[in-house]
Amino acid sequence: MRVTVLGGGGFIGTNLCRRLKAAGADVRAIGRSLAFPDAMVGVPWTQADFDDTASLAAAIAGADTVVHLISTTTPASSNVDMAQDVAANLLPTLALLDKCLELGIRRVVFLSSGGTVYGIPKSTPIPETAATDPISSYGVVRLTIEKYLGLYRHLHGLDSIVLRVANPYGPYQRLRGHQGLVPAFLERILNDEPIEIWGDGETVRDYVFVEDVAEAIQLAIGYEGREKLFNIGSGHGRTVNEVAQSLRDVLGLPVRTDYRQARPVDVPRNILDISRADATLDWRPRVSWEEGLRRTVDWTRARRDGIAEKAQTVRLNDV
Amino acid sequence: MRVTVLGGGGFIGTNLCRRLKAAGADVRAIGRSLAFPDAMVGVPWTQADFDDTASLAAAIAGADTVVHLISTTTPASSNVDMAQDVAANLLPTLALLDKCLELGIRRVVFLSSGGTVYGIPKSTPIPETAATDPISSYGVVRLTIEKYLGLYRHLHGLDSIVLRVANPYGPYQRLRGHQGLVPAFLERILNDEPIEIWGDGETVRDYVFVEDVAEAIQLAIGYEGREKLFNIGSGHGRTVNEVAQSLRDVLGLPVRTDYRQARPVDVPRNILDISRADATLDWRPRVSWEEGLRRTVDWTRARRDGIAEKAQTVRLNDV
Repeated sequence: MRVTVLGGGGFIGTNLCRRLKAAGADVRAIGRSLAFPDAMVGVPWTQADFDDTASLAAAIAGADTVVHLISTTTPASSNVDMAQDVAANLLPTLALLDKCLELGIRRVVFLSSGGTVYGIPKSTPIPETAATDPISSYGVVRLTIEKYLGLYRHLHGLDSIVLRVANPYGPYQRLRGHQGLVPAFLERILNDEPIEIWGDGETVRDYVFVEDVAEAIQLAIGYEGREKLFNIGSGHGRTVNEVAQSLRDVLGLPVRTDYRQARPVDVPRNILDISRADATLDWRPRVSWEEGLRRTVDWTRARRDGIAEKAQTVRLNDV
Repeated sequence: MRVTVLGGGGFIGTNLCRRLKAAGADVRAIGRSLAFPDAMVGVPWTQADFDDTASLAAAIAGADTVVHLISTTTPASSNVDMAQDVAANLLPTLALLDKCLELGIRRVVFLSSGGTVYGIPKSTPIPETAATDPISSYGVVRLTIEKYLGLYRHLHGLDSIVLRVANPYGPYQRLRGHQGLVPAFLERILNDEPIEIWGDGETVRDYVFVEDVAEAIQLAIGYEGREKLFNIGSGHGRTVNEVAQSLRDVLGLPVRTDYRQARPVDVPRNILDISRADATLDWRPRVSWEEGLRRTVDWTRARRDGIAEKAQTVRLNDV
């Protein structure tokens, strides 16, 4: 199995590359930034922007599967300049698909967004067949990429699988804008700062541990059935206030909260129906919320200690 | 009522502008080409490309409603260069929506495509709630514009109505690529040429008379209910072979056929469920297929006679 991971240096990418590498795959990664080089030892890395077609072509040449994890925007940032969102994400994806055809790539696995493509759902949990009316440009672009994948499949026979992933959390997640509630809260609590909550904290999200997401991608790479689209989440909803409470429990630290004005980009409630992935992809989350949080906390503490140690070493060397 | 029609010089645009003008509206039009200037007397016209934002802003300033009829591609041509389709249609639409916000436009009415956004339907007639998996870039771009309209409504309160129109036919339709089966067949039959049929002629389409479409747009401009999306078609399906037979009947002329290889961009069957427009917009087609064809034939013959007469005059003047 030869896999190239686009956006392989990011949160999900790092977890995925490590998993594929451990499974014996020939995996390489390309992206704008490699957040944790130490974690990616043995994975060939190309630093390139998404619109750098030559570097992209070189990185995917010879692969049988391309995993597309790239987004240059977040849901909130995407609404600031939607034309730029389209130009930076949709257009390079079309160029990528043409390259995949040209280079005989067998399959593209695309990470779409279970948290944004459905918009404000009529009911939860949300099945893959629900209406898709995003309230962020991010969601519209993810959805449009899904449609173009279907088109390339129909017109050119380029195989693809779409995973609509809920809110992933876990090791190797960095703060990025306001994305990533768990690391944002963790950092603030460990810094003894109040956590910021947008709205009343009753917004419901479906949190899924990143290693479970990586496993879903691995299964999607090898899946030979007829389905092309899967929700990947925990199937359970948690409010922001409940996340704060869980972190309080796991950390054993006091948590102060700072409630802010709600944002129009946030859907009030999102929980994915994951029965299709369960039945068809034979995938289900293995890591419980409590266990996932503990592992995230351990990783975050170790990383902070490492950073502090490095800083200490630098200071000692300065003397 | 002050309305600016984008793409107002085209097939549907010409019919719409004439109808709105006759109804006493203050209507102006902007677009790439004015196909029938004589038919548009009294409608101020601006010649401009869709990405000419300054001309666009000038043409919509002061309007309460903008009707967006522009597409620079057809379903077949759109698949040749999809990135160009996105660049030429989606990006200028986003610029248009920003201008609409800036200029305080009350409502945008967008003509989407009932024939392409659904892709290959699971069953017919197709309701507005059916799955949308287009098999042309044209269909993906129409669908993506629908999603951005929903987003602008949610984020910025810009009101909009989407009409997913089936296959319109009637006066002022010109041949454009392979779009427009009725005028393509009519021209060939009147020229005593064989008509070209892609596939076995059993492809089913929903043909709707253009004046009925213009009425639907007029109703959408004034509609104050809660629905934002309507199918606009006849609700009946006809095969290509049946269209050829109907033309034979109406014209009383022999029709020779030339069967060609089917195209992957053509869905096999498309019939729209128009019950929502009927119940909510109080719209239904008024012109029967036979009557519509007769009026189209009369218009086409009169136009050909006019062209022949002009050519005759030119020849006489040359002597």
